[in-house]
Amino acid sequence: MSKNPEKLQPKLARLNDALESGALEQARRMLNRGLAPVDVAHLLESTPPKERNVLWGLIEPELQGDVLQYLGEDIQTEFLNRMDAQQLVSATEGLDVDDLADLLQRLPNTVTLEVLDSMEAQERQRLETVLSYPEDTAGGLMNTDTLTIRPEITLDVVLRYLRRHERLPDTTDSLLVVTRGDKLIGSLPINRLLVSDPSMLVREVMDTDMVTIPATMEEADVANLFERFDLISAPVVGVESHLLGRITIDDVVDVIRGDAEHQVMSMAGLDEEEDTFAPAWRTSRRRAVWLGINLITAFMAAAVIGMFEGTIQQVTALAVLMPIVASMGGIAGSQALTVLIRGIALGHVSGNNVRWLLNRELIVGALNGVLWALVVAAIAVWWFGDMTLGGIIAAAIVINLLIAALCGTLLPVLLKKLKIDPALSGSVILTTVTDVIGFMAFLGLATYFYL
Amino acid sequence: MSKNPEKLQPKLARLNDALESGALEQARRMLNRGLAPVDVAHLLESTPPKERNVLWGLIEPELQGDVLQYLGEDIQTEFLNRMDAQQLVSATEGLDVDDLADLLQRLPNTVTLEVLDSMEAQERQRLETVLSYPEDTAGGLMNTDTLTIRPEITLDVVLRYLRRHERLPDTTDSLLVVTRGDKLIGSLPINRLLVSDPSMLVREVMDTDMVTIPATMEEADVANLFERFDLISAPVVGVESHLLGRITIDDVVDVIRGDAEHQVMSMAGLDEEEDTFAPAWRTSRRRAVWLGINLITAFMAAAVIGMFEGTIQQVTALAVLMPIVASMGGIAGSQALTVLIRGIALGHVSGNNVRWLLNRELIVGALNGVLWALVVAAIAVWWFGDMTLGGIIAAAIVINLLIAALCGTLLPVLLKKLKIDPALSGSVILTTVTDVIGFMAFLGLATYFYL
Repeated sequence: MSKNPEKLQPKLARLNDALESGALEQARRMLNRGLAPVDVAHLLESTPPKERNVLWGLIEPELQGDVLQYLGEDIQTEFLNRMDAQQLVSATEGLDVDDLADLLQRLPNTVTLEVLDSMEAQERQRLETVLSYPEDTAGGLMNTDTLTIRPEITLDVVLRYLRRHERLPDTTDSLLVVTRGDKLIGSLPINRLLVSDPSMLVREVMDTDMVTIPATMEEADVANLFERFDLISAPVVGVESHLLGRITIDDVVDVIRGDAEHQVMSMAGLDEEEDTFAPAWRTSRRRAVWLGINLITAFMAAAVIGMFEGTIQQVTALAVLMPIVASMGGIAGSQALTVLIRGIALGHVSGNNVRWLLNRELIVGALNGVLWALVVAAIAVWWFGDMTLGGIIAAAIVINLLIAALCGTLLPVLLKKLKIDPALSGSVILTTVTDVIGFMAFLGLATYFYL
Repeated sequence: MSKNPEKLQPKLARLNDALESGALEQARRMLNRGLAPVDVAHLLESTPPKERNVLWGLIEPELQGDVLQYLGEDIQTEFLNRMDAQQLVSATEGLDVDDLADLLQRLPNTVTLEVLDSMEAQERQRLETVLSYPEDTAGGLMNTDTLTIRPEITLDVVLRYLRRHERLPDTTDSLLVVTRGDKLIGSLPINRLLVSDPSMLVREVMDTDMVTIPATMEEADVANLFERFDLISAPVVGVESHLLGRITIDDVVDVIRGDAEHQVMSMAGLDEEEDTFAPAWRTSRRRAVWLGINLITAFMAAAVIGMFEGTIQQVTALAVLMPIVASMGGIAGSQALTVLIRGIALGHVSGNNVRWLLNRELIVGALNGVLWALVVAAIAVWWFGDMTLGGIIAAAIVINLLIAALCGTLLPVLLKKLKIDPALSGSVILTTVTDVIGFMAFLGLATYFYL
């Protein structure tokens, strides 16, 4: 297996050729020996369902577990559900405890129990510790492969102890110093171990001010800590500093990536774990829900227009221009909404400064409202030769942009307080408000002035 | 400085109290000794401009450089522009070369030269190497603090060599093995050094199959490599494997985070480096551009409606229902667009499988189109008591959802080929198409059947 990045693309192309020409033996060899498990996973994720199943069948059982851990949840669940407990046991041998825990959480309970039964006592106990915490907390994210040492030994003893290992756990950048009762009292960074006098005691060299993570901390907060302090790994503790495991940067990177995808995907009502090549039927069902929710809001806007049917019949130019008022409000509102959602996510926005932000957004809404109201009014007057129409649409745009600023600022703050995900529901609610207010202001003013 | 996460919030609250009550001396002490630079930066980013300037003035010059590197580009540029070269030199002492290079790239050239002049020869040469690559490539991202060793020495010599250092560079997880001409030939992971027999030669233990990154590689590809292979650090090389520096995971995490913010922010026409507390005037100017672009597309939709004014005057129910057709198309199109943009970003989508995806999206569009067309038609018939209207809106919705599927799938592929950022322009173009097609199909069919 070569890690040279440029070599992946041609390999995938050759594999595709082999599959298309039916050279299954050759494809099997490439899958099992020519590619890293992470690349096999990538290949599976880039393949439509039918070919994907053929590929999966070609992968040797021992490799399947390795590949599984790199797959998106959607595809993972699909493959997991087709394996029986025996296949699972052999596929998951040698996986890290945190990855294994993630997999097991997607299985029916009876199968999970069978897998647990087949494990060695120590391994099973570790796994059960991880499984006892929700998947999105530090406890669910942690691994139990910690290297612990005692404070009262010398660094020389530590070095000899390490040499007795065949290899150290991946991403080991520090050894954890614990008391006899497994209470965490310090951390010895490997890089400090290497530069210190070997005759010194662990106690004299260890770091006692390291970042420790409570097992119940939410994964987003864990990611924040890793970013703030440029951490590579950090110990996870339970009550009274009892050491439970550690979290490593590679798992944190997955959290950050997942969080970012969640924001983008949920704005379109999609799930971030969704398989790019999910079949049409499943995709249709999932997306229908979001279309249905949006249909309700569209009918609310339609109902507002319906209130003014008489006015539109008299002045059809209103029907021509009304989408402009609604759309400008929607765009301005999303800008405020996006800035606020990001500010909240980054921890910039708190009770103290929301008023400043609201103030700023209202000024921005007023400035851009007046600017674009004048432009739209001028075009409307030129198009329909009607000064009143120009005045009405200008007023409606200013009103709608101010409401958009108000709503775009306060909505995410409110949703956050109600523990509702603003990325998912924020923009639906916002555009409903700007549509309704936009149509109502424009058509309402028109009714007043024309009828 | 304590790293305990729970302690930050009360500290910030106390600092705020000190500022509000005018106890500047106390605030100064807290800023310079009570908080980590990354937390001071966070505090500055969470503060409106006026108070922010007061805070900045309280921070000691030596600390300002440390704080600067953690600030967003927008705020960084603001503070940098207010400092003269002398202040910059003292503020930037002790910064990592990659962070310093990032800062200098935001300064006028004359100031950059002054700062370079004030540096020691070796340090300057390193900085110039980093500055010679664009900021968003591996060369611009790398640091030059590599620890190099020769292949023909024993591990025992390596251990003694390391012990001569007071500390190792941050995030050192491996030593780089080079020839006399600085040609990279291998890597010795620290964790392998620790478990190996000290009498062995570096050559016998080193890893020759490590990931090496060409200096010209784009930062997004670097991030991909780090994620694929769970890397902590990786060497950067120039022509003929000449070692130039190394990239560490903390900088890669920043790239990943920035990339994610870019996607979310640019959908609303915003810049990911934008200061949450940017003043109203600057914010207005920046957002006005996006509103203007959207206004053009809104007028295109209005022009389409204008073509059918006569029909609307006869059947005003059309004006009531037409936003529904446009909005359903917009939502369905964004769903396809979002899935495709993500698929492209993840490398799942390539020439081979676009056809499969287009096919899937068309089926999904047809299924959801028919489902929601029936629902909307039923409501329209019940509302306006007009069977023809029901038939017309049903047909228009099906047509618009099929166009939305086509456009949502092919648009990002096309934009990518034209090297246009699909996150920024994709949804504007898409909603223009679904608005125009939606209004045209609905009002056009109505004109045909009613007039």
